Amino acid sequence: MNQKNTREIERKFLIERLPANLTRAKSYRILQGYLVTEPDDRHVRLRKKEKQTSLTFKLVRGSVRDEREIELTPKQFAALWPATKGRRLQKVRYEISWKNFLIEIDIYGGKNKGLIVAEVEFPNRATCRKFKPPNWFGREVTGVKRYSNITLATE
Amino acid sequence: MNQKNTREIERKFLIERLPANLTRAKSYRILQGYLVTEPDDRHVRLRKKEKQTSLTFKLVRGSVRDEREIELTPKQFAALWPATKGRRLQKVRYEISWKNFLIEIDIYGGKNKGLIVAEVEFPNRATCRKFKPPNWFGREVTGVKRYSNITLATE
Repeated sequence: MNQKNTREIERKFLIERLPANLTRAKSYRILQGYLVTEPDDRHVRLRKKEKQTSLTFKLVRGSVRDEREIELTPKQFAALWPATKGRRLQKVRYEISWKNFLIEIDIYGGKNKGLIVAEVEFPNRATCRKFKPPNWFGREVTGVKRYSNITLATE
Repeated sequence: MNQKNTREIERKFLIERLPANLTRAKSYRILQGYLVTEPDDRHVRLRKKEKQTSLTFKLVRGSVRDEREIELTPKQFAALWPATKGRRLQKVRYEISWKNFLIEIDIYGGKNKGLIVAEVEFPNRATCRKFKPPNWFGREVTGVKRYSNITLATE
């Protein structure tokens, strides 16, 4: 069980060409679906990361952020998963180190096939602002609704 | 684990005076809170019924109904429960037999103190239509949003 109540500071970019070292990176197959979502981004998400199944409650309202995650048994997951039909996405996540940063690269599958997005999380706002992306990063899409996971899952 | 995908046929009434046999009825203390609710009644609810904790997904859209419930461990429940703050209700539920029917009487507490509601579930529409309520039932409030549990929890 994992509980995280801190505000995440992160930036998101489209990726058009992948970095050379990707094959050596750690990777996970991720399947996720949204049970219920409120318009102002309060939602309950189910996720399967390789064999690990979880349920996450997430609230983002301006500067208020609350995230609560519980692990589910395979049986609990199987009972709820059908309710996410039509609200799902799949991706492979690669984790690579670059300078002092951890970059997560999500290569989407299914109806979002072809889309590749990178996310970088920062310890504070100053580091976030000063971040100079590597040259293989494309357009920044931080906060762009079109590229939120909920939109990608439901549209 | 319990999964129920059938459509419930039920009617709901306000109660102003309680039946005489209530003290002999089975009763449960219920505490419930809503994690996330979509306007068209798709929601995730946490419930504690005496010591039994559960999470329920519920969808009602016209004649489409889907309900999925999983039991939660006390730890799983404790991790998610704080996220229902401001969206909770408490009640004591009494179950009494009347003719061939099971009547559930909910005596609300907390901010809804004083409210008493009875629900009767029917095996089919014909029985539902023909039901003659006992004389201690008050006004019928079937489908009235003011008396839905979500409204009672959030307003």
